[in-house]
Amino acid sequence: MTHRFFVDEDVAEAVVLEGAQAHQIANVLRLKPGEQIALVRNGVESLVVLESVDAAAVRGRFISKHRVDAEPRVRLTLALPILRGDRTEEVIEAVAQLGVSRIVPFVAGRSVVRSLAPAKRERWARVAREAAETARRGRVPAIAEIRGWETLFDSLEAPVLVAWEGEVLVRLEDAVPQSAQLSLVIGPEGGLAMEEIVLARARGAVTVSLGPRNLRSETAATAAVARAMAIFDR
Amino acid sequence: MTHRFFVDEDVAEAVVLEGAQAHQIANVLRLKPGEQIALVRNGVESLVVLESVDAAAVRGRFISKHRVDAEPRVRLTLALPILRGDRTEEVIEAVAQLGVSRIVPFVAGRSVVRSLAPAKRERWARVAREAAETARRGRVPAIAEIRGWETLFDSLEAPVLVAWEGEVLVRLEDAVPQSAQLSLVIGPEGGLAMEEIVLARARGAVTVSLGPRNLRSETAATAAVARAMAIFDR
Repeated sequence: MTHRFFVDEDVAEAVVLEGAQAHQIANVLRLKPGEQIALVRNGVESLVVLESVDAAAVRGRFISKHRVDAEPRVRLTLALPILRGDRTEEVIEAVAQLGVSRIVPFVAGRSVVRSLAPAKRERWARVAREAAETARRGRVPAIAEIRGWETLFDSLEAPVLVAWEGEVLVRLEDAVPQSAQLSLVIGPEGGLAMEEIVLARARGAVTVSLGPRNLRSETAATAAVARAMAIFDR
Repeated sequence: MTHRFFVDEDVAEAVVLEGAQAHQIANVLRLKPGEQIALVRNGVESLVVLESVDAAAVRGRFISKHRVDAEPRVRLTLALPILRGDRTEEVIEAVAQLGVSRIVPFVAGRSVVRSLAPAKRERWARVAREAAETARRGRVPAIAEIRGWETLFDSLEAPVLVAWEGEVLVRLEDAVPQSAQLSLVIGPEGGLAMEEIVLARARGAVTVSLGPRNLRSETAATAAVARAMAIFDR
C-alpha cells in the first residue's frame, strides 16, 4: 500500500520533502529510490516516485494526480468538550478517520476539564493529521481555537445539532439534512444544563437523541459522527 | 440520579450486598440509610431503600420494580479481534454502552496480538459490566472465550455480517435485517485475508462496507455497533 503524506503546497514536477516527513521516509519507513509515495492536498492525491532518500531531504518526481474518493461529501464540524486524560485525543483519532472536517474544543458549565495547554492542542492537530492519512482521506481536519458555550455557536455552520439526553422525540437520523455542511455538538461529562440548551436553541440549534442508553461523551461523539457520515456516504 | 448495580440473583424483600458493591456504596459513593439504589437483573430494575451502610455489608428493603427501557430490542454479538495495548478495552467500554449483548474476542491470521491473559479477560468483563451500568442498561454484556477464525463462526448467531474493506457494494445498513439477533465481525489491524473471507462466506456470513474511508479496527467496531443499533432503536 502506498504511503501517503499531507503537504501544505501544491505538488510541482520536482518534489522535495524535509523535516519530519523526510525523517519518516528515510528512517522509519526506510523507503528506497524507485518506490512511490502519494502527496495529498485539498482532496487531490499526487503520485511521486522517489529519486533520492536522505533523512535531511527526500527528492522525487511527480507522476500523476487524481481526486481522493474517500473524502466525505459533507463538511462536518464536531464541537467536542475537553475530556479527562487522553479521552479527547482518542475521540479526535476516531472522528478524523470517520471524516470530520473540523473539531472545535469547548468548555461548558459542567465541564470537568476547563483549560487546554498549547502543547496538547498541537498534539491533537498531529493526531488528526495522522488519522486522516490512515483513513486515506484527502484533507486534514482542522482543530479550532477553544471556545466557551456562549461563543461556541458563533463558530458553527448551520444546521447545528446538539446531542442531548433530555431529547426523546427527535432522533439524530431524523434531523440530519442533505446539506453541504453540518455541525454536531456533544455534551461534556457532567451533561448540559437547561440554560445551555435554551441558549443553543435561541441560536438556532436543534436537540437530537442518540438513543435510550446513557453514553459517555467520547462514545457519544464517535457514535454520532459515524451515524451522520453513514447518511452522507449513502 | 439513582446509582445502579447489577446483581446475580433475584431481588428479595430484604436485600444484603457484600464485597465490592458494599465497599463502593459505603466508601466510594458514601451513601446513607434512607437513600435509594437500583439493583438490576435480566432487564428488570428493582428500587431498594438503604437501611444500614457498612463496608462489610449494606442492607436495604425492596420498594418496587420495573422493566429497563434502555435495553436494546436486538441481541447483538460483536466478534472483536484482540488489539494492541488498551485498545480492546476501550472498544469494550464503548460498545457495552452502545448495547452489545456479547463480545467474542478472536485471533485471525494477520492479528498482531495472538493470546489473551486470563487477568485481562477478567478486566474486560468488569469494564463491560461498569459500562452497562453507566449506560443504564438492563443486562451485562458477556465476554466469551477467545476463538480462532475457523471456530469463530460456530459461536455466532446468524445473520453474521463481516465488515471488510474489500466490500464496496453492500453497505452495513443494507444488510442489517429486522431480526431478534445479529452478529458483527470486525477485522484485525492487519486486515482479513482472502481465504478468511472465503471461509466466512462458506459459513453463511455476508461482507459489508463501513464506507470509503480506511478505519482502524477499534474505530470500525464502535462505528459499526453505533450504526447497527441506530437501526434497531428506530
